Amino acid sequence: TGDKANGRTLVYTCNGCHGVPGTTNAYPQYPVPKIAGQNQQYLINALHAYKSGERTHPTMMAQAQSLSDQEIEDIAAYLSSISPK
Amino acid sequence: TGDKANGRTLVYTCNGCHGVPGTTNAYPQYPVPKIAGQNQQYLINALHAYKSGERTHPTMMAQAQSLSDQEIEDIAAYLSSISPK
Repeated sequence: TGDKANGRTLVYTCNGCHGVPGTTNAYPQYPVPKIAGQNQQYLINALHAYKSGERTHPTMMAQAQSLSDQEIEDIAAYLSSISPK
Repeated sequence: TGDKANGRTLVYTCNGCHGVPGTTNAYPQYPVPKIAGQNQQYLINALHAYKSGERTHPTMMAQAQSLSDQEIEDIAAYLSSISPK
């Protein structure tokens, strides 16, 4: 299971594009999905799909490949625990 | 641009798995993404990626391949207009 506190630290990187609530979104018009409050297991699956190359978005592949399996769990635990915006 | 009213009709099919707010979700534990209130252009891009086979989830490929480009616009217009749950 994921560590929400560590996930909260790790999602700092996500904010530049995804604009997690409570932070500033640098690219509000870029068509990335909202991820705050998203389904925990879906987030885990999506990050593993980017890590393996099943999903091919270049930025997300690079980000996911930098994450350990535990870090993916931590990010999903945190993001699924907060409210959607 | 999309027709929200038509989109509202079209998302009836989505509800079985995605559980759009205001409807009953048949599979609350299945790890599909929440789509209510999602970014409009992201939804359009995702449905086209399933339609083309770039994204490979079998159920979503079948669903997206049944949709016209206008219907994809309509669904995205509706879903992005409602509140996330």
